[in-house]
Amino acid sequence: MSQINDLWLVGIGTGSPAHVTLEGMQALRDAAVILVPNKGAGKDDLAGMRHAILAVSKSSAQVISFDYPVRDDSLPYGERVDRWHDEIALRWQAAMKNVQRAGPVALLVWGDPSLYDSTLRIAQRLQPAPQLRVVAGITSIQALTAAHAIPLNTINGAVTITTGRQIKDHGWPEGAQTVVVMLDAHCQFQAMPPDAEIWWGAFLGMPEQILIKGRIGEVAASIVALRAAARAEHGWIMDSYLMRAA
Amino acid sequence: MSQINDLWLVGIGTGSPAHVTLEGMQALRDAAVILVPNKGAGKDDLAGMRHAILAVSKSSAQVISFDYPVRDDSLPYGERVDRWHDEIALRWQAAMKNVQRAGPVALLVWGDPSLYDSTLRIAQRLQPAPQLRVVAGITSIQALTAAHAIPLNTINGAVTITTGRQIKDHGWPEGAQTVVVMLDAHCQFQAMPPDAEIWWGAFLGMPEQILIKGRIGEVAASIVALRAAARAEHGWIMDSYLMRAA
Repeated sequence: MSQINDLWLVGIGTGSPAHVTLEGMQALRDAAVILVPNKGAGKDDLAGMRHAILAVSKSSAQVISFDYPVRDDSLPYGERVDRWHDEIALRWQAAMKNVQRAGPVALLVWGDPSLYDSTLRIAQRLQPAPQLRVVAGITSIQALTAAHAIPLNTINGAVTITTGRQIKDHGWPEGAQTVVVMLDAHCQFQAMPPDAEIWWGAFLGMPEQILIKGRIGEVAASIVALRAAARAEHGWIMDSYLMRAA
Repeated sequence: MSQINDLWLVGIGTGSPAHVTLEGMQALRDAAVILVPNKGAGKDDLAGMRHAILAVSKSSAQVISFDYPVRDDSLPYGERVDRWHDEIALRWQAAMKNVQRAGPVALLVWGDPSLYDSTLRIAQRLQPAPQLRVVAGITSIQALTAAHAIPLNTINGAVTITTGRQIKDHGWPEGAQTVVVMLDAHCQFQAMPPDAEIWWGAFLGMPEQILIKGRIGEVAASIVALRAAARAEHGWIMDSYLMRAA
């Protein structure tokens, strides 16, 4: 058996089994197979989180682990990501050779499958195309606004969600009042207007959660220092932040 | 007893008790009091949803209903919203006169308390300021992308979340590739580029959920017609949509 007929992408939130919805937990129980990636050294916390969620769900699905491929950093960005996604799809299909019973195959997706996550794009590479089901999960944006107890938007105001790479290349998004930045390993907020406010958080939803807020000019250096120390301590870090124009 | 010391805003997702997270359900059980608004005729489905969630949670909290005030449409927009929020805060405090036991007070917030919701702003009016806790919930944006099984963003691309009012006044947000529109009672997508793609959904997460997708030029009229019919049938409608530039 190696074909995936029904593929369920289950959003698991950002670091606590308590972030999972009732629908997500039920999907894990209803799945026949759950594919769990081994992402390698330094990501053990994340694999541990997936197993903790499976334990809470009381799923009796067959759990199959597979090793994540390594990205070929010699390729240009677009091609590198494309090849990597091709390879992950092949690994899903290879893992299916070990399946003992037919039925839906589930993947636990950090945050929500819609937001800066590749799983939907990888799923589109499967042949024949499976029936896809997406179960929404709490994103790191929501974990951030919840932790700081702040609204995402101002009244009737627009919000731009973007990446560290985008604000490095293009600066503060034209006309935006609220900007949320994901995937920023280089603390690009340091180049943003010093009188804008920032709400930053790392390890959101986890016991290790850390939060800083204030005017960028006043707190940027503290965030950079705390982020580096926390990353050194844990071996990895996931963080995001929201900025509002002054 | 009329003071709120601990106020918990619990996001309940968009129309199904299964959208609630384990943390949200636990918060409803741990609360001493739950305030439930009566929003009046045509919103009975929404009050019913709140009571269905409370039943699923097995909360033994004291449930206190209060009538929602009516907005004074003779006032200018900003002032009208301000006054209305003042009045809602007063009603929360008035409802507290009936409380039988001390402890955290919870409110069930549609979607997520961070996204186009007033509850955080109303909470800021309470004196003395309560200790606030926010429990994230699935937003209608996530329910929309999950239902259509699409990503929110393109690879490394930015996303603008905005309102019907904003795109009416300012058109397609400058340079945006992905635009999500909330709170649009007037189907402003009809004025957007006809070759852009739209993914539209109403009653997301509910049994009545309806979805349409396609090029705006090809499906806009169908959405307008289906939306009007569904609204007439149910007496209310909540919808949102995502557009991507061609």
